[in-house]
Order: sequence, then structure tokens, then C-alpha cells
Amino acid sequence: MQRAINLTILGVYTATPNPSVGCVITKDDHIVGEGCHLRAGEPHAEVHALNAAGKRAKNATAYVTLEPCSHYGRTPPCTLALLEAGVNRVVCAMVDPNPKVAGRGIQCLRDANIQVDIGLMEVQAEALNPGFIKVMKTGLPFVQLKLAASLDGRTALSNGRSKWITSFEARKDVQTFRSMSDAILSTRQTVVDDDPSLNVRWDQLPSKIQANYEQASLRQPVCVILDSKGMVPSTSRLFSFPGKKIILTANPAVLFTQKNIEIVVIPKASNGLDLNVAFRVLASKGINHIWVEAGPTLAGSLLTEELVDELIVYQAPKLMGSDSRALVNLVGYTEMEQVLTFSLTDVCQIGSDIRLRMYKQ
Amino acid sequence: MQRAINLTILGVYTATPNPSVGCVITKDDHIVGEGCHLRAGEPHAEVHALNAAGKRAKNATAYVTLEPCSHYGRTPPCTLALLEAGVNRVVCAMVDPNPKVAGRGIQCLRDANIQVDIGLMEVQAEALNPGFIKVMKTGLPFVQLKLAASLDGRTALSNGRSKWITSFEARKDVQTFRSMSDAILSTRQTVVDDDPSLNVRWDQLPSKIQANYEQASLRQPVCVILDSKGMVPSTSRLFSFPGKKIILTANPAVLFTQKNIEIVVIPKASNGLDLNVAFRVLASKGINHIWVEAGPTLAGSLLTEELVDELIVYQAPKLMGSDSRALVNLVGYTEMEQVLTFSLTDVCQIGSDIRLRMYKQ
Repeated sequence: MQRAINLTILGVYTATPNPSVGCVITKDDHIVGEGCHLRAGEPHAEVHALNAAGKRAKNATAYVTLEPCSHYGRTPPCTLALLEAGVNRVVCAMVDPNPKVAGRGIQCLRDANIQVDIGLMEVQAEALNPGFIKVMKTGLPFVQLKLAASLDGRTALSNGRSKWITSFEARKDVQTFRSMSDAILSTRQTVVDDDPSLNVRWDQLPSKIQANYEQASLRQPVCVILDSKGMVPSTSRLFSFPGKKIILTANPAVLFTQKNIEIVVIPKASNGLDLNVAFRVLASKGINHIWVEAGPTLAGSLLTEELVDELIVYQAPKLMGSDSRALVNLVGYTEMEQVLTFSLTDVCQIGSDIRLRMYKQ
Repeated sequence: MQRAINLTILGVYTATPNPSVGCVITKDDHIVGEGCHLRAGEPHAEVHALNAAGKRAKNATAYVTLEPCSHYGRTPPCTLALLEAGVNRVVCAMVDPNPKVAGRGIQCLRDANIQVDIGLMEVQAEALNPGFIKVMKTGLPFVQLKLAASLDGRTALSNGRSKWITSFEARKDVQTFRSMSDAILSTRQTVVDDDPSLNVRWDQLPSKIQANYEQASLRQPVCVILDSKGMVPSTSRLFSFPGKKIILTANPAVLFTQKNIEIVVIPKASNGLDLNVAFRVLASKGINHIWVEAGPTLAGSLLTEELVDELIVYQAPKLMGSDSRALVNLVGYTEMEQVLTFSLTDVCQIGSDIRLRMYKQ
């Protein structure tokens, strides 16, 4: 199963909106075939592995990081392929959370008298596809909120200057997270203030990733801009890069002439766009995994509305001063029990900075 | 030399205002004596080691973490003891920064035709006595500033509530730093706001330290309160604990009846007491190493006046809100190049929190 998980190393960058899945087929304690799912529409991991195994798949064991599918999608069901190949045992790391599958694949195999075991390395397998699992379970995408601040929790001087708080290494590290996401989300305000590129720059990915993920197959995440009034300048740098852009707005009169820009009208909420609706709409468009880079206002709203799954903070060992701009716009706590509290999952140094990963308690 | 450094494990808690020193005497590749300096007025490390070695010290090699002293202080010079014992080689990790020694010990041994080698594990030896070295070199004590804050750099809610930002484990960790310092320094404001104990609680020290440092020999750091107007309430909790207290004030009329409280009048500066003078006065009283626990105002002043040697930040993974109180009162930066920048030396998780150690770049 570890080998099957290792096989997904490339799929996590490319398989979206499908899950990244790996499959290893063994017979008499030897690997006779393996495969992974690389892109939606292409064969699933099981099919690649069965093709590699050929006749050796007869009476073999298949290790799959996700329950095999039992439905006709863009490809025929993998359960059928496993049955036809004569596999006699299937070990799945996890049940497929997709309601179209959700145990039906396992049942279908068991009905054909194939031994199915479930749960081997489940935690590791779940970590491969947080976006896919979240959308399937809740209809909402998996959201990572990236913040960058000084030690005293500031994101810009009082005059707005902020280049650069964090080191080049920290900013480069962001590229890896961007490359694993389906969409990079920001706001009109951030686009106007910083004019960011919001794309993946292959040459800034770590060499370990570059070695498996060649530049030619680079997938650009969709660039999503929250722009309730529909006033983002069409001259913004991000529009000069290839790849799909989505502008979420409450203004139905917004027009963009560029072909790769989609305008989606979202209802307004008391404080800007209705973020819950916005995220559900994005999920319905195959965006399972969102990487958010924005300012303190959106950060505050997302946290308050409990739309953040993981908080990733790059912290520079600097003191920018008590008159500088706050990390997150949140106000009104009167008791320590009310403050937002997180559980750390990872703390490390990146260049001269620290990176903290955490989820809400 | 590593063994000599290991021997200082207890001295770092007790030897002050003297440096913690370890000595190992070897002959024919065997240790024939070892010792460490435990308390001012008691024999130095070399004397303990020579006593243990007895006649085996003849033609032996002495490894000492600090240059042996050459002057008559509270004890006779160690160079004399080494000469009388017939040691024929001395290896010192570092030259003594004390102007009364500063190479004279080495010269005295060399004059007697003893081979002296200097610099083995110098960095590690210097780390044993940062306070002693700083005072000897500059007349100012080594100052560690402790801060505790949330992820967004806040130390209290807007209504002043702050109990507790950090975890019990983080607060316990503070005890270890307090126990290695000569003084715990705070302000009247913090005493009034939080009524802290500002002492070392032996039962909260890590068991590894407890194993070497028994409760009966616990040394309480001096408790120093900056109180320019001389208005700290005599009913404050800290006065109920044993151990010396020093109140630094600009008000010559301050009177305290308790015997263990010393009042020291310090000139005023534009913003409270003259901290540079205050620290020099403390150094002259044998306080080499100060652990500061105070609020954002003193933190800002100490940092601005470049009186901080090490910044130790306990950070809770919480967001307390943008209306909460700032970590450090510093204002007026207009360029990113101006902000205070530190170099991290250590990042670790302590309980549910993070501890960062850094020095100013």
C-alpha cells in the first residue's frame, strides 16, 4: 500500500478534479503490475496496473489507495476490470466518499466472491485527496488559507509597504502549495494593492517535484477573484498569464472580453459576497481544493464563517510595530474562550522564516 | 572538553555571579580527576579536579572550560594550584573575558613552561556563561526578553483579559529560563495588572534538571521591578516570597520596611527610567543575566535601546483579533528596511504552542 501511495506522487498535481489514486498488483509476494491515475478522462490506476500485470493478474491481490469505482463515468468501472482480470483479493486504503460509489465498488467485488479488505493506511490515503474527499462529503471545497506576517502579526506597515516580509525561500515554498491546488483565490483589493501573478512558476518548484512533474505537463490552477462590485482592472498582471480565470461578482453587468475569463454572479451577503454560495459554486465547477492568498478582511470572513480547513502561516522573525496592519480582521472577543484556536500539525523553518500549519480546533 | 562542559550542568544554576566552569584532568588517556565550580566563594573547578587527582596530577593534562584565574579573589589563583600540582599541559576552551584575568592566567602558565592550548569547543563553552561574558566585555548584563502572544501578535483582549494565552507546558518552560537567570525583571505595571510571583518553582522544573539540582539548593533569582514613581503596592504577591527584591525607581522618597527589598534610585529618561544606567547598576551588583517578563511598553523600549540579547517568544496558535493588545509598542516605521529583524536560533513546539528563540540581526 505504501508503494501504491508513492505512485500517486504525480497525480496530486494533475488528476484533479478526480482523486489521485495508486494501484499495485502483487502475486506470490511480488509486484506484477502498478499504475496511477494521472488525468481525468485517462485510465484509472487499476486499469494501468492490470494492463501491466497482464495474465499475471489472475488470482493476484490488488492494493488500491481508494475503493475501485463501480459506475460508468468517463471510463468503464474498475470493479469490472478487476473481475475480468481474475484478481482474487482487493485491499483498499479507504472507501470512496463519492456518493456514486460509497461502498458499491466493494459490494460489487464481494458479490463476486472476491476478498475485500478496507482501511490499510487509511490516514495516509485520505491525505492524498483532501479536496476530493471534502467536496464529496460536504459539497464545499477544501480550503487552505495562507497568511504571511511578522512576529507581531503584521502584514504591512501603516503606509501599506510590505515588500518583502518573508524570505525568497518562503515565497518559493508557496509555489508548491499553489501547484497542488485547483484554484488560487484572491480578492480585487489584493489584485489592486499588490498586482500578483497568482500562477505556478515551474522553475520555482523544488527540484524533487520538478523531477517527477515536467514543465510541459504543468497544470495552472484556476485563478479566482472575489470582486463583488466587478471592478477588477482588466490590465491586472494575472490576466496576462495563460489559464482559466473566474471572477465571482455580485454585479451582473460585468463584462470581460478575454476568452479565458468566466464571470459568475454570486448573491451578496452582509459583508461582501456570500462566501458559502461562492465556494459551493466553485466545487460544482470541479474545484475541490482552494489555496487562498488575500488580505486581512477576507481572512477574517473565511475564518468567522468556518470555511477554512487549514491555516498556513509564514512568519518572519521581524517586529513591524504596533501601528502596522493587522494579520486578520477579527474583532469583538471579550473572553479568552472565544478566540479562534488551532492545532498545530507542522512547524518548520523555511529560509529565515517559520512555516506553521494548523487546523481549527 | 565535552566532559568538562557536561560537568557545568549544575553550576549554570548556582555559580552566579561567577562563571560556571568545569575541569577534567587526564593522564595517559584516562580521567584522573574532575570538578566544577558550584558557588561563588567555594573552590574553583580546577581545585576540585586537582584534589580528586591527587599525585596523579603530576605531568597530567587539565581541560578547563575557561582560562584559569591568575588573581587572588575569594580563593587563591588556580594557575598556582595547577603549577603546584605539576600539571604539564592545560587546554582552555576560552580566554577569560574578566579584565583581571584576560590572558594573564595563560601567560602565567606559559611562563612556567606549561603547554597551553586555547579554543577547543570555544562556542559551546561561551554558551555556558553568556551573562558573565557580556558583563565582563561591556559592563551590561545579558538580557533575555520573554514574550508570549497569539499568532496575530496579541497579548491581551481589548478588555485586558489574557489568562491564558499559552499552555501550561509553555508557562512551565519559562521556569527553566528563570532558574538560569540572576534576576527576573518586570515593571510596576505588570505587577499591578497580573500580580505575578516572579520566582522559580522547583516542582515545575523539568525532571532532568530536578535530578541534578535538588530543591534544597534552589537559588531564587533576584526579583527586579522597574517602578519610576515608586508606587508598586507592598501587598503584591511577589513580596510574599523569600529572596531578594530590588526596586529601581526615580523617586528617592520610596520606603519599604521589608528587609529583603533594596531601593535603588536611577535617573529618569524621556520615557521612564534610564534603562542603560539601570542595567549597568544591576551588573555592578553581580547580576549578569536578566530574564525580562513585562508588557509591550518595556519590550519596545528595550528593543529600541538595543538592550536585548535574546528574544524568546512563546506563541499560541490562536487568533485574538485585530482589536486586541499589541505584542510590542513600537511605532513609526515607514520602510521595510527599518523594521527590527532577528535571526532564529531555535524553533520548537512546547505543549500546544511554539517557542521561538532569536537574536537581533
